[in-house]
Amino acid sequence: MAKGLPTRAENYAEWYLEIIKKASLAENSAVRGCMVIKPYGYAIWERIQSELDRRFKDTGHSNAYFPLFIPKSYLSKEASHVEGFAKECAVVTHYRLKNDPNGGGVIVDPDAKLEEELIVRPTSETVIWSTYKNWIQSYRDLPLLINQWANVVRWEMRTRLFLRTAEFLWQEGHTAHALRQEAIDETVQMLNVYAEFAETVMAMPVIKGVKTANERFAGAEDTYCIEAMMQDGKALQAGTSHFLGQNFAKAFDVKFADKTGQLEYVWGTSWGVSTRLMGALIMAHSDDDGLVLPPNLAPWQVVIVPIYRGSEGLDQLKDKCYELKAALVKAGVRVKLDDDDKQTPGWKFAEYELKGVPLRIAIGPRDLANGTLELARRDTKTKESVPMDGIVELVPQLLTQIQDSLYNKALTFRDSMITEVNTYDELKEVLDTKGGFVSAHWDGTSETETKIKEETKATIRCLPIDGSLEPGTCIYSGQPSARRVLFARAY
Amino acid sequence: MAKGLPTRAENYAEWYLEIIKKASLAENSAVRGCMVIKPYGYAIWERIQSELDRRFKDTGHSNAYFPLFIPKSYLSKEASHVEGFAKECAVVTHYRLKNDPNGGGVIVDPDAKLEEELIVRPTSETVIWSTYKNWIQSYRDLPLLINQWANVVRWEMRTRLFLRTAEFLWQEGHTAHALRQEAIDETVQMLNVYAEFAETVMAMPVIKGVKTANERFAGAEDTYCIEAMMQDGKALQAGTSHFLGQNFAKAFDVKFADKTGQLEYVWGTSWGVSTRLMGALIMAHSDDDGLVLPPNLAPWQVVIVPIYRGSEGLDQLKDKCYELKAALVKAGVRVKLDDDDKQTPGWKFAEYELKGVPLRIAIGPRDLANGTLELARRDTKTKESVPMDGIVELVPQLLTQIQDSLYNKALTFRDSMITEVNTYDELKEVLDTKGGFVSAHWDGTSETETKIKEETKATIRCLPIDGSLEPGTCIYSGQPSARRVLFARAY
Repeated sequence: MAKGLPTRAENYAEWYLEIIKKASLAENSAVRGCMVIKPYGYAIWERIQSELDRRFKDTGHSNAYFPLFIPKSYLSKEASHVEGFAKECAVVTHYRLKNDPNGGGVIVDPDAKLEEELIVRPTSETVIWSTYKNWIQSYRDLPLLINQWANVVRWEMRTRLFLRTAEFLWQEGHTAHALRQEAIDETVQMLNVYAEFAETVMAMPVIKGVKTANERFAGAEDTYCIEAMMQDGKALQAGTSHFLGQNFAKAFDVKFADKTGQLEYVWGTSWGVSTRLMGALIMAHSDDDGLVLPPNLAPWQVVIVPIYRGSEGLDQLKDKCYELKAALVKAGVRVKLDDDDKQTPGWKFAEYELKGVPLRIAIGPRDLANGTLELARRDTKTKESVPMDGIVELVPQLLTQIQDSLYNKALTFRDSMITEVNTYDELKEVLDTKGGFVSAHWDGTSETETKIKEETKATIRCLPIDGSLEPGTCIYSGQPSARRVLFARAY
Repeated sequence: MAKGLPTRAENYAEWYLEIIKKASLAENSAVRGCMVIKPYGYAIWERIQSELDRRFKDTGHSNAYFPLFIPKSYLSKEASHVEGFAKECAVVTHYRLKNDPNGGGVIVDPDAKLEEELIVRPTSETVIWSTYKNWIQSYRDLPLLINQWANVVRWEMRTRLFLRTAEFLWQEGHTAHALRQEAIDETVQMLNVYAEFAETVMAMPVIKGVKTANERFAGAEDTYCIEAMMQDGKALQAGTSHFLGQNFAKAFDVKFADKTGQLEYVWGTSWGVSTRLMGALIMAHSDDDGLVLPPNLAPWQVVIVPIYRGSEGLDQLKDKCYELKAALVKAGVRVKLDDDDKQTPGWKFAEYELKGVPLRIAIGPRDLANGTLELARRDTKTKESVPMDGIVELVPQLLTQIQDSLYNKALTFRDSMITEVNTYDELKEVLDTKGGFVSAHWDGTSETETKIKEETKATIRCLPIDGSLEPGTCIYSGQPSARRVLFARAY
């Protein structure tokens, strides 16, 4: 394409990275695996944060902040947790540098070695449950409903911007409850919050489901997830919500006195989404011309570009643009007016197309004379000349239309990418040709799941909550199957 | 006092820590020097963030995110910066743990040693300027106006909650400009943003000034600051804004082509405030009964407590409370209605007094019959019975009154704590008896400043921007002095 993006058909992986680059969303830093989130990318992340944060607070949660560092010994306290998280971590061993006595700049001071190494948090269950032990004594202290917005580090060897980075930003909810059922209800509630957010704000349809034991969070009794379908037919886990049972309560000895004074372990949940959602967003809607943003998430829903040569009539034109911007802002629309003289209108058109701004309004001298403006939709790439009168009413309607249209398009695509198969050969063929989710019977064993993964690179994405419970025969082992599950290759 | 707080007169340091504990603001974690910010403390921090963030955006800045880790060699690139920051840092040396072959849990994997150690950022100038090098080519790329909300780590040996912790939360602005004067203007603009925020939102008067060379940020040409006065007569630096000159541009080779195509180094600024502001807030207004919050910063400006025994008439009472809450929320007031049956009204009164909620409304059955309610002000500790009619108009007026009253009280106190002296003996006497800021002549040398600091523990807080420029004689050396400066003992 004109802006040097490869098409999705040519090279999907390259197309993805080039959108991130050309739309100025993020870039790799000098520190291996750590990204810089650029202002435009961060503005989208702030929109994600604010929409989610409101939902967390509406469901009774408060934010708090826990330490970046976790004592190494904490990771070992929950048996399965250490297996899942203790391996690829950034380890702090020293707390001081000093000038090299040999003049070689600064070196690590060998005298400043920590007694116990600190791990940069890969997730915060351990440090949070060690704190909850002091916060929870009685049923009066429950439920404890807390969320944290934070950076976490997992030392990934192969990284890809937003999808897998050594440091990433996320939120992690950590709740404690008196009753098992209450904790399960919380787990499901937060899954529903994520799904509603993904569908109504990101315009991204998701399948709600439960993970198999193999794919479960290390330390959870059950992991619920939302799974989305990308345009290349690969699945992407967009959020998880874990029912922790009493595992962390037992590991950190967190008990409460119930109304009769009896001591019981509390029940826990944790749930999180991360800057990975940015990757999902890019791949859910964008096209060969760049990013396409759903209006509910776009930092700027409308960009206004004045069109002029020379300075004649410029003041009047700019006045009109400012007036229009003010009217739209008053109507609750997020608007950027770009009257920067250092760039041409053509450059700006290309720029906001790449950046996925849902609506572009251009106003030139002739529009001014005629009382019109040019309105361009990013999603359909249609342009029309419309009267200025009524534009303040029209824009919000159009934004709603675009939001709905993006969702419906993604939903139609996603639904077309769910294929039911009844044999292992069919599964392999669909994975290799069409891709997408493949609905198939599975015998429920980790062994079969692992074999299929090794042979096809597809994993069981989930047991869909809304899926059919009709029994059948496992496509791999021929053993009885309680229900169909969804396989896919995934990010 | 009733709730077990020591009075300020008895033990100011203990009073400070007890307020943090009893108002549930924060606590020490198991990781040395790192704090847990509890939900109520974090809610106040979120108010600080949202008020500042709006001001940053109104002045043209965008948020972005840069890596947590800094390659060790980066710290050495700006000569004076390394002296100031390279010493007490958390150093990441390894990226993997493994199971101890001898069965001793997890150990650091000696095979996973980093080639170059990574420093957990103590501040981000180096990593950001190394990135700016790629972002800035031409005058079209300038000014670059970026802010980051982040956690940073400085390995402090003596820590105190909020005032000095190993990990803390902050914002750091980093801007790049084509012109020297433009960068200076930015530095001063952000100082003014901080001062306006401190005074109108935190109700905390501040003195704007310039630091001496000794107290300057490592790598800056000039450090501007806002200095506040705490109730015990000690000063507290509440925010800094640095004019970096071309120091970091030269260290990281950041040049731009001006309109004629000539390459020039860019000019930089950086500016930050941190969770230290929470410490300032606590000490600025609180009293022997607990926290006192200015309404503009209070997460809840009003708490409504229904008063009842047994369940008779309870539904009607609660309905009235919910109705009142809805009406106040509609009027833009932040309201908490506490109808939790697990706690008594007496417990709640004590709790919200400790938490510094500006206004408390109590409604009992008699109020319901009489159409009245009890209104209590936290700052003056006055109570009165007022009619329910008109309460929605009265509350915002009262909140404004409380905000103004807290500011004026703090201003009167602060002004009373500035003492002009003309001899070194007077300086020492004022420091040892009254405390506060001491305005005195100083010869402008680092030597004199250092001597005075060693002998009195007082530092030069700043050269006030609005201070008199009348010359005089240095109180220490007898040498000529260009102007008076402010000395104080400080947090």
